[in-house]
Amino acid sequence: MIKQEIIAGVDIGGTNTVFGFILKTGDCLSFKSIPTQPADNVIKFIEKLSEEIKVSFQELSNDYSLAGIGVAAPSANHFNGKIESPSNLNWGKVNFITLMKHYFELPIAITNDANAAALGEYKFGIGKGLRNFIVITLGTGLGSGIIINGNLLYSEGGLAGEFGHTIVKPNGRRCKCGRAGCLETYASANGICRTVLHLIAIYNEPSELRNISFSKMTGELINDLALKRDPIAIKAFDFTGKILGKALANLATSFVPEAIILFGGLADSGELLLGPTREQFENNLLDIHKGKVKILRSSIKNGMSAVLGASSLISYSNDHHSIELMMSENIRENN
Amino acid sequence: MIKQEIIAGVDIGGTNTVFGFILKTGDCLSFKSIPTQPADNVIKFIEKLSEEIKVSFQELSNDYSLAGIGVAAPSANHFNGKIESPSNLNWGKVNFITLMKHYFELPIAITNDANAAALGEYKFGIGKGLRNFIVITLGTGLGSGIIINGNLLYSEGGLAGEFGHTIVKPNGRRCKCGRAGCLETYASANGICRTVLHLIAIYNEPSELRNISFSKMTGELINDLALKRDPIAIKAFDFTGKILGKALANLATSFVPEAIILFGGLADSGELLLGPTREQFENNLLDIHKGKVKILRSSIKNGMSAVLGASSLISYSNDHHSIELMMSENIRENN
Repeated sequence: MIKQEIIAGVDIGGTNTVFGFILKTGDCLSFKSIPTQPADNVIKFIEKLSEEIKVSFQELSNDYSLAGIGVAAPSANHFNGKIESPSNLNWGKVNFITLMKHYFELPIAITNDANAAALGEYKFGIGKGLRNFIVITLGTGLGSGIIINGNLLYSEGGLAGEFGHTIVKPNGRRCKCGRAGCLETYASANGICRTVLHLIAIYNEPSELRNISFSKMTGELINDLALKRDPIAIKAFDFTGKILGKALANLATSFVPEAIILFGGLADSGELLLGPTREQFENNLLDIHKGKVKILRSSIKNGMSAVLGASSLISYSNDHHSIELMMSENIRENN
Repeated sequence: MIKQEIIAGVDIGGTNTVFGFILKTGDCLSFKSIPTQPADNVIKFIEKLSEEIKVSFQELSNDYSLAGIGVAAPSANHFNGKIESPSNLNWGKVNFITLMKHYFELPIAITNDANAAALGEYKFGIGKGLRNFIVITLGTGLGSGIIINGNLLYSEGGLAGEFGHTIVKPNGRRCKCGRAGCLETYASANGICRTVLHLIAIYNEPSELRNISFSKMTGELINDLALKRDPIAIKAFDFTGKILGKALANLATSFVPEAIILFGGLADSGELLLGPTREQFENNLLDIHKGKVKILRSSIKNGMSAVLGASSLISYSNDHHSIELMMSENIRENN
């Protein structure tokens, strides 16, 4: 019997890592979330991740063969397989692919998490049929992936663009990157928590958020309270959306994509964030660009864009190109 | 005798229009500058431009045949041949190609001036051999052209990116586009003149610029005085370069090109501008990007980047692709 090929897509986040088994159609057979632990020992993490993937694969029926593993990770370099000092994990510089190869004799590829989300939207999500768009991931931080003429833009040396680290407020909030005023210190889960503290310090409106310490605050909690009309939570989304909208307008002015697709926890807050974002986005575009660039939300269920995109780094064996060929082409283009 | 093909490249500026006859090698046989007049009547301007091209062509030896005309113009749309309300010319919306076809039975193509400069640098200038770079034109205003994977990026609907209209100072200097704080109100010939007035208002240092009215002030004049160590002129370049460097760092953070190439009058001031630009550029990059993106000056003589780039819109008849084919490919890619 010929077994059906599946590919494991892995999305490594600062807190949790999600992996799933993906069919060629983009359908996900099963997925699992595990904590990204230990956050200070990548060797141990890879050992655990590999074991979890093997166990989950064995739980599937016998009809499938595993054709490869595609990984999305922060600060990952598509060309050399390395993860380079991700800001939310204490891993330093590590060749992730080489380490994974100890556990799997399979094609393994890696790319930056926002790039993977962009690939996921392009192949299986709301970016299907678009040729030029930008995916913004709004998680703990803010990532960006760019599709141009139907291809993922790998920047110089395989590094990804880091739109979250464009400076929107000179001498603004201190960022983990060592600088100040980066967009992600405002427009991210961490950013909206900082905004809540700032707003509590300024305003007198009653708010449940006054009872919560910064360490316990989350984007989800602020979202839940905003839906219950908590005035500070609503103001926090408004403030965040406006900063994000202005920054996206600047990006779209240089770039003029067909769409900007928002993905990740904070994007799940829907109109709470998208309302003020769209308003400031349109207000800050040049007249000639107004109405031409859509702000969309990811359409992929369960936040699986990056898992799906990571899986698409590997080709199914009846595809025309093998992953090795694709990678060597990319390397050639960038040299 | 088989005549050698040449292509006319035309670069329409707010004040002057330059055209030249370009060989396949990129060599320019002859070029001429005419005033872009009348600035309020595009029909008359095209009549005069066409006549000038014909006269100059006849002045060449009989060994050449004219294979086509490529035009670079502000606010030009590559796909529909239109120029749409350029901010420095009172032309409104006009189909430039259709009008030019009254005078020439030849292939004619048009693109945005900054895009043309990017093509010129890519094919004949310092961008030769690079795959991903951005050209910034520093003329009266500030334009941007982007080469990605060796192709000019035509943004949505054929419009060009307008990096000069990214907002760098909220509620800053009023811009001709109707908004405030656009980069080109600081980093452009017009911008540096505004900066001089601002500096005279603040500082007490003696300066010849105190004797010159705003209407008479030019980037060239400020450059000449800076070379003579005029303290206000030097401060003006420093201020301009720093703003430009910070803005370019934000662009490079999202995008990570191999290089940013500066072109146009203000770039001709060399280290006066490039010194503070490079300093703030490097200071404002993420650590992972530092040292990876070069800031370069156009290497094409006589400011002919856009003329050369415009000529390259047309193919010589022994090329593999005709311009019609190239355009239809681009249209398909963008639909």
